[in-house]
Amino acid sequence: MQEILIGIVGAGTVGGGVIKILNKRIENLRQEQGLPIRIARIADKDPRRQAQFAAYGAICTLDADSILNDPAIQIVVELVGGTTFAKEFVLAALSRKKHVITANKALLAEHGPLIFETAAKENVSVYFEAAVGGGMPIIKTLREGLVANDILSIKTIINGTCNYILTKMSREGLSFAAALDEAQKRGYAETDPTLDVSGGDSGHKVAILASLAGAGYVPFKSISIEGITEIGKNDIAFASELGYTIKLLGIIKKSNDEYLDVRVHPVMLPARHILASVSDVYNAVLLEGDAVGQILLYGKGAGELPTASAVVSDIIDVAHNISCRIGVRIPMRYYSSSHELSIKPIALIEGRYYLRFTVQDKPGVLASIAGLLGEEGISLASVMQKEGFSAKKVPVIILTHVAIEKNLRSALMRIEAMNYIKDHTQVIRIEE
Amino acid sequence: MQEILIGIVGAGTVGGGVIKILNKRIENLRQEQGLPIRIARIADKDPRRQAQFAAYGAICTLDADSILNDPAIQIVVELVGGTTFAKEFVLAALSRKKHVITANKALLAEHGPLIFETAAKENVSVYFEAAVGGGMPIIKTLREGLVANDILSIKTIINGTCNYILTKMSREGLSFAAALDEAQKRGYAETDPTLDVSGGDSGHKVAILASLAGAGYVPFKSISIEGITEIGKNDIAFASELGYTIKLLGIIKKSNDEYLDVRVHPVMLPARHILASVSDVYNAVLLEGDAVGQILLYGKGAGELPTASAVVSDIIDVAHNISCRIGVRIPMRYYSSSHELSIKPIALIEGRYYLRFTVQDKPGVLASIAGLLGEEGISLASVMQKEGFSAKKVPVIILTHVAIEKNLRSALMRIEAMNYIKDHTQVIRIEE
Repeated sequence: MQEILIGIVGAGTVGGGVIKILNKRIENLRQEQGLPIRIARIADKDPRRQAQFAAYGAICTLDADSILNDPAIQIVVELVGGTTFAKEFVLAALSRKKHVITANKALLAEHGPLIFETAAKENVSVYFEAAVGGGMPIIKTLREGLVANDILSIKTIINGTCNYILTKMSREGLSFAAALDEAQKRGYAETDPTLDVSGGDSGHKVAILASLAGAGYVPFKSISIEGITEIGKNDIAFASELGYTIKLLGIIKKSNDEYLDVRVHPVMLPARHILASVSDVYNAVLLEGDAVGQILLYGKGAGELPTASAVVSDIIDVAHNISCRIGVRIPMRYYSSSHELSIKPIALIEGRYYLRFTVQDKPGVLASIAGLLGEEGISLASVMQKEGFSAKKVPVIILTHVAIEKNLRSALMRIEAMNYIKDHTQVIRIEE
Repeated sequence: MQEILIGIVGAGTVGGGVIKILNKRIENLRQEQGLPIRIARIADKDPRRQAQFAAYGAICTLDADSILNDPAIQIVVELVGGTTFAKEFVLAALSRKKHVITANKALLAEHGPLIFETAAKENVSVYFEAAVGGGMPIIKTLREGLVANDILSIKTIINGTCNYILTKMSREGLSFAAALDEAQKRGYAETDPTLDVSGGDSGHKVAILASLAGAGYVPFKSISIEGITEIGKNDIAFASELGYTIKLLGIIKKSNDEYLDVRVHPVMLPARHILASVSDVYNAVLLEGDAVGQILLYGKGAGELPTASAVVSDIIDVAHNISCRIGVRIPMRYYSSSHELSIKPIALIEGRYYLRFTVQDKPGVLASIAGLLGEEGISLASVMQKEGFSAKKVPVIILTHVAIEKNLRSALMRIEAMNYIKDHTQVIRIEE
C-alpha cells in the first residue's frame, strides 16, 4: 500500500510531542493497523528546531508552503495557533484537497463555518480532537460515541490554568495574583495569561462543544464570557463556609425555549458536586444525553504529550479514511453559518446567586438591600454578615432563591446607587 | 443511496431501547449524517413482543433465521445474550458477510478469537461498545481515542450491581444479604445474582478491556476472579475507620516482566481515591496511557437506554462504513489465539493487604501471628484490636506493608493451623 505522508507546521511543544509519539508507534501502526504513515515534512519558523527533528527522517524546513506544494502529502497538521497565518494555511491546504488536523480552538471557534464548508466542498476532513480537552477524547465522544443521544447539557472545567489558580486560592488561601504567580512559575500559565484567566480560551472550547452538542453553529461572539480575575480570596472563603467551591465553568444547556444557553463564568458548585472535586490542572466534561444519562470525562486538558495524544489519534483516524479511500466519513453539515443557533441572552437566564455587598455598617442597610431585591421579585435564601471588619467596609453575603438575571441586574443597579455601598458588588452564579 | 437494513435479534430491555432510539433519530440520521438506516426485521422468541414493536414498520418474527436469510440485511444486532444460540447466530451472520453488533460480553470474553477471526476472514466488522460499560464509550476510547497510547493500566468499577451493594453496605451498615435484597427489589440485581456478585460479569468485561489494552488475547479463564459475597459489614466498617472504601475492582497493569497483570477482586481504596467516590450503580474506568496520563470515564454501566445508546452508536459507525463501502475499518488482528498473552499468576502479585483474623483472646496470639508473618518476610504497617467482642471470637485487623501474595498465602496457611484461629481469615488487597 502507498505510504500516507504527513506534513506538520509548527514544531513547538505539541508538535514535538506528535513527532515523538509517531516515531515511537510507527512500526506498530504499519503492522497492527496496516497504516504506512510517514512524516514527510516539518515546517517551523524557528531554525533551531530543524536540527532537533532532523533525526526523524523528515525534511525540516522554514518554508510552510513547501508542505502545501508537495502533492504527495495528504494530511496536514496545523499546530501554529492563532487565527491569521493558521487560517490562511488551513484554507490553502483544504483547497489543495489535503486533510487537516488542528489543535487550534481559536481558529475553529472564530472561523469554523468557513473551514468546515471549505472542507466539505473539497471532500476532505478536518479533525480537531486536540482543540478541546487535551488528551480527553471529548470530540470523538460527542461526534461518535454519544451520537445516539440528544445532548441536553454540558458542564465543563476546560481551562487548566484557571482551575489550577482557583485550586491554589481555595487550598492555600492565596489571592488571585499570588496564585497566578505560582501558576506562571510552574509553567501552567503563559507570561501573558489574559486569554486563559479572562475566560477566552474556555469560551473558544465551549463554542466548539456547543456547536457539536447543539448540532448547529454557535458563534464565539454570541457567548457570554466572564473570567476569574475578579474572584477574591474572601469569596473563596465565604463559598467554602457555605458548602460551595468556586470553579470556572463552561455551561451549555438546551431548554424548552428557542435558545441554546451557552456561557462561561465562575460558579459556586456544591462541594459534593462531581465537578467540585476536579482540581489542579485537570479538566472534566460532564455531559447529559437523553439516552445515556450523565457521563463524565476527566483528564489532563493540556501539556505536550496529552495534547499530542489527541493529534495522533486524529492522524490515525484520517489515515484509516485515506486507506479506505474516504474523503469525509462523518459529515459536519450543521457547522455552517446557515445553521447558526440563537444563544440565550444572559439577561434571560435563571438561577440562584451569591452576592457580596461591601457596605457601611449602619442601621437599615440590610433592610434596604433586602427591600430593593424584593421589589424586583428576588427573595433571599440566606444572609451572612461577619464581625471583625472595619465598620466603613463590611461584607454582607446574600444567597438568593431562583431569580431571573435581568431582575437581579435591575435590583443591583438600584442598590449600587445607595450611599451605604462602598465597593463594587460581587455576583457569582450558583450551579446546583 | 440504497437503504442500510438492520436485523435485530432479541427485543428485550436493551433491544427495546435500541428500537426506540433509532425510531426517534432516524430522520435526523438521514438528513444530517446521510445515513438511510431502517430496521427491517426484529426477531424474538416471545410472541408478545411482536405486537409491541409492530408499530415501528419492521417485520416482527419468531424466526431469527429469517434475518440471516434476508440478503438485504447488512447489519445484525445480537442482543440475546449467552454463549450458545448467540455464538451460532453471530458466526452464521458473519459467514453471510453481515456486520455484527453485540452487547454480549460473555460471548466475546469466551469466544472472542473465533468471532474476530471469522469476521476478518469475511471482511466484515464486529462492534461491541455495549458489551462493556453500558453507555460509556470505553471501547471506542481504547480503540480510537487513545490509539496513540500504550495503555499502562486500567482500574475499573464495571459492575453496577456489586457497586450498588457495596455502596448500600457502606452507607447504611447493611449486611451483604440485606444489600443484595435491596438491589433485587430495585431491579438492580437479577433473581439469580450469581454472575454479578461472583465477579464473573466483571471478569468478562475485564477480559475484553485487557485484550484491547494489551493488544493481545486475554482468555477469560486466565483471569483470577473473586466476587463480593464474602465481604462482611464489619470489613466495611473497619475499612472506613482506617480511611479506606471497599470496591470490586477490575485491574489491568503492564509490568516490566513477561506478564500482563489482569484480575478482578474486592480492594480497599483510600477514601480520597477518585474511584472511591464512584457510588450506587455508576461505573468508572480509570486509564493510564503513556502519552495522555490518567483519563477517567464515568457513567451508568447498565440500563435500557444507556446500553441502547452504545448499540446505536455502533449501528451508526457501521452504517458510515457501509456507506463508504468499507468492510473492516480498524483491524483487530491481535484479538486472536495466536496472540494470547501470558497473565501474571496471582501468587506473583505484590501489594499491601488487609487481614482480618478471628482469634481467641488469650496471651501471645498477636505475637504468634506477627511472628509467622515475619518469617515469610511480611511486615506489619498497622494493627487494630477492638474491645467489646466475646473473648472466644475477637477480630484482629492487620494492614501489611508490601508483600508478595505467595508469601502471604504461606504465612496464612501456617497461621490458620493454629488453635487460636476461630474462623476463616479475611484477606482484602489494598490498592493505592
